[in-house]
Amino acid sequence: MKVSKLCFLIAIPAEAKPLIEHFGLIHHPNLFGALPPIAYKGVYKNIELMVVVNGKDQQLGVDLVGTQPATLAAHLAIEHFNPDLIINAGTAGAFARNGSQIGNVYLSHKYIVFHDRRIPIPGWDAYGVGRYPTFNTSVLAARLGFKQGVVTSGNSLDMPEVDERTINEIGGEIKDMEAAAMAWVASLYEKPFFCIKSITDLMDSEKTTQEEFLENLHMASISLKDACFKVVEHLSNSDI
Amino acid sequence: MKVSKLCFLIAIPAEAKPLIEHFGLIHHPNLFGALPPIAYKGVYKNIELMVVVNGKDQQLGVDLVGTQPATLAAHLAIEHFNPDLIINAGTAGAFARNGSQIGNVYLSHKYIVFHDRRIPIPGWDAYGVGRYPTFNTSVLAARLGFKQGVVTSGNSLDMPEVDERTINEIGGEIKDMEAAAMAWVASLYEKPFFCIKSITDLMDSEKTTQEEFLENLHMASISLKDACFKVVEHLSNSDI
Repeated sequence: MKVSKLCFLIAIPAEAKPLIEHFGLIHHPNLFGALPPIAYKGVYKNIELMVVVNGKDQQLGVDLVGTQPATLAAHLAIEHFNPDLIINAGTAGAFARNGSQIGNVYLSHKYIVFHDRRIPIPGWDAYGVGRYPTFNTSVLAARLGFKQGVVTSGNSLDMPEVDERTINEIGGEIKDMEAAAMAWVASLYEKPFFCIKSITDLMDSEKTTQEEFLENLHMASISLKDACFKVVEHLSNSDI
Repeated sequence: MKVSKLCFLIAIPAEAKPLIEHFGLIHHPNLFGALPPIAYKGVYKNIELMVVVNGKDQQLGVDLVGTQPATLAAHLAIEHFNPDLIINAGTAGAFARNGSQIGNVYLSHKYIVFHDRRIPIPGWDAYGVGRYPTFNTSVLAARLGFKQGVVTSGNSLDMPEVDERTINEIGGEIKDMEAAAMAWVASLYEKPFFCIKSITDLMDSEKTTQEEFLENLHMASISLKDACFKVVEHLSNSDI
């Protein structure tokens, strides 16, 4: 597949800014009316690029993290831009016990799951986990030197025992707060989708996730930008 | 406010069916393209009615419960229908310790919150809970004989300790899986929104939520339909 329209879904501006600046993307205000998602557009070589960020909470002024804003942003981005490929780029947690280190970059692998939708009724239990498709990133990961992992999403930054149990059961390796919702929306539109995740925190370290997240967000966002650039450069030269 | 366009958001068909039949609403296929939400429309006296149901998972065939499908359904319904008022009607859990009984009908009160978005960073902690506005239902509850309660939403049917702690902290009284996401979307459009919730299960009883939910779903859906009819009848005669 030759990609000529590529959409990046990125939850928060701190993660998106280095990428937006690197590609010189232009802010398009009011593309989605009064709704919060924010769009940036531009061109790199033969590829039209769009970055959509979830936007801000109008009352509290904080970035709209989590799966509900991710659902809305993904829907609006796809409806407006009709991309050939969607990439959710962002920061995430991982596990030292799997060999992950802060700053590592992962591509999504196998499927993308939820770890906080427990619905113990037959059929609904599988739906709760989701197992939404990811584009097969094996060639890309090998060629560009990225790791691969099962991305698992939930609406909380922490990992209480009940979530950890689910993450272990479903083989989650990369923990974020948006990917599964975006993957679900992409699957509704039958659009190829994968994640590029830069690790800010190790869930099994002694520090809390919020400490590590805030400490490493800037560094991880730069490493995310470098990874996204490598992928776009690759897509501009090769089929995927 | 005189309501002339009223939209019911109802997660699953089992909850919606008695209402759709009672008002003789007509299914409008493909209103939302290939996306899963399903729309029914009709008129009662001087009020245009629309019911939107979240739709089904195409792979698994189960109803799309939870806050991500609720976000998408609420957005599509409001964008398409531009209602004067949105009501999320559905079944929910409650607490015997608050005097709730199965079959009771509650209107949302004070605000609508999330109990499974723990983000312990200042600003994001409040955003996680949400506290989205509900239309003031006090007059309606008094006049029509309904109880009132704080509705709290999360993506799981169960209530592990970590969720129970949050529910207690934020004063949640009625536990469902969609309302807060719908309330968030309604707030983005500055649309009046409230919930009508019919109780299928008591979270502090000895039976599991899934047992009680399945046992009482039909009965609670009939009592939900009766309650919704009372509200629509009231709106057809009075300002709200």
